[in-house]
Amino acid sequence: MTDKKLIGVDLGGTTIKFAILTPEGEIQQKWSVETNVLDEGSHIVPDIIESINHHLDIYNMKPEQFIGIGMGTPGTIDRDKGTVVGAYNLNWKTTQKIKEQIEQGTGMKFALDNDANVAALGEQWKGAGNSAKDVTFVTLGTGVGGGVIVDGKLVHGLGAGGELGHINVEPGGLACTCGNNGCLESYASATGVVRVARKMAEQFAGDSQLKQMLDDGDDISSKIVFDLAKENDVLALMVVDRVCYYLGLALANIGSMLNPTYIVIGGGVSAAGDFLLTRVDKYFKNFAFPTVKTSTKLKLAELGNEAGVIGAASLALRFAD
Amino acid sequence: MTDKKLIGVDLGGTTIKFAILTPEGEIQQKWSVETNVLDEGSHIVPDIIESINHHLDIYNMKPEQFIGIGMGTPGTIDRDKGTVVGAYNLNWKTTQKIKEQIEQGTGMKFALDNDANVAALGEQWKGAGNSAKDVTFVTLGTGVGGGVIVDGKLVHGLGAGGELGHINVEPGGLACTCGNNGCLESYASATGVVRVARKMAEQFAGDSQLKQMLDDGDDISSKIVFDLAKENDVLALMVVDRVCYYLGLALANIGSMLNPTYIVIGGGVSAAGDFLLTRVDKYFKNFAFPTVKTSTKLKLAELGNEAGVIGAASLALRFAD
Repeated sequence: MTDKKLIGVDLGGTTIKFAILTPEGEIQQKWSVETNVLDEGSHIVPDIIESINHHLDIYNMKPEQFIGIGMGTPGTIDRDKGTVVGAYNLNWKTTQKIKEQIEQGTGMKFALDNDANVAALGEQWKGAGNSAKDVTFVTLGTGVGGGVIVDGKLVHGLGAGGELGHINVEPGGLACTCGNNGCLESYASATGVVRVARKMAEQFAGDSQLKQMLDDGDDISSKIVFDLAKENDVLALMVVDRVCYYLGLALANIGSMLNPTYIVIGGGVSAAGDFLLTRVDKYFKNFAFPTVKTSTKLKLAELGNEAGVIGAASLALRFAD
Repeated sequence: MTDKKLIGVDLGGTTIKFAILTPEGEIQQKWSVETNVLDEGSHIVPDIIESINHHLDIYNMKPEQFIGIGMGTPGTIDRDKGTVVGAYNLNWKTTQKIKEQIEQGTGMKFALDNDANVAALGEQWKGAGNSAKDVTFVTLGTGVGGGVIVDGKLVHGLGAGGELGHINVEPGGLACTCGNNGCLESYASATGVVRVARKMAEQFAGDSQLKQMLDDGDDISSKIVFDLAKENDVLALMVVDRVCYYLGLALANIGSMLNPTYIVIGGGVSAAGDFLLTRVDKYFKNFAFPTVKTSTKLKLAELGNEAGVIGAASLALRFAD
């Protein structure tokens, strides 16, 4: 294989992460800068260009030594044109011609995809996905996102492929930001877990620290719910069970549809680890088609924050000769 | 393109359909023979070989004039080895070395896949799928099957990809032959529609011919339910609404996952036509992610019985130089 390198960029609302990787996906250098969302996010792309060029100087490297740059970003993406629109946490309200600017500013080829898709690629390539060709990744963060990889490639369909947070798991259930009711995201995101807790607390009368905290108006997080559940708080255990039920149902339906080698669970809520995984797996096995439950494996994500830059870098592999 | 031809074979429990097609998918000749399931189905493969060779004689053609043979079959398939096991409606209880026998017996290359997958390929290539790269096909027959096509290729995953009949639409619902409860197949197959009718009739007290027929012990079919609904039978309309609700929910979840260009509905139950389609579409739009409901289109299948031979023939395109 070539000894040219890849650059991966993971653009988030708080920080922009960068990495230089080998074509085999090993990180050789990494750094990050703060995201400057002022002035309608107009500094972001120039900052990315400057940071890349600056670090090439530091490492005494030239654009010709790179296969290309790949980037993951929030917002609605036109992959062919290399543009993004509507990334509200970046203050990008108008169409951003990212590919054009970055290719011009760095002299390197550039590809982009959305942040959840790129994290999916990272986990599939170098993380829990173990380079299997069929991997579905679901990320439980502020929202629930995901990426579906079939035969080694992301499924985009007409653009919205991988919207796993909007699988309907409870028709007529909790209202979702998307306008529907009963989406997985309303139950299994970090905020969803808290909503489920509030809802179940209303009808709960027993002895529970979680109930107490909610009644006292304390700030509750998904982490607090899982931590209390691990300490056998009765209400917290009920909440976790409900959340895992919905996750297990959604993942079982993904399984019956695609029968991937792995379904990988990442994002903040997945920090609950095996405590979460074993409970989700119980419901997955309850709902999945028989040959799916014995073949598709659920796993926790392994790369943490690095999934983004690694997966983003892999987008640039298409430019390899 | 080459002027070599394709042969498509659609193996069913009652008949075996054959066709000779151009590489562009136009049927030039077709015929069929009865399926002889006697003696553990041991006559089936020899019959297929003999029928192909006989028709090549009739048309004065030679194996060298063909790209290859593709076949759709029930049962559990090993696509690499070209074997099938457990096709109970063919009386195949042991592993059948189909590829080996047919290649030897005809002197042509051979590929196979399961019957629902092959029908999906047919509809995607020459039917309602309009050659779009991302098409999901769901067939509502005795059971509910399907095929998921991404980037022009069938999704198999670890083998059970496309088991759309076992998407869970009602946790704890009607028992399915697969051992789970609440699978789409239990509600939206031809037998499922009748089960829903029986169940809803129990609690129905109004004026309805369907109710009358069920109470009288008449033979009820999915067609009768839909026909009565079209005549505004109150109970039949409720049954159709329930069936379409479950179908719309399942198809919406497929949409949010894959955002295909088309989701194509085929099989016997789909003979209800637009009466079915508009009702499923209503629920699809109720449950799908906003950008999915405005992009993915639901369509009725267009090829009828020919989807199988056409899709099967397309399997052989891999042998084209």
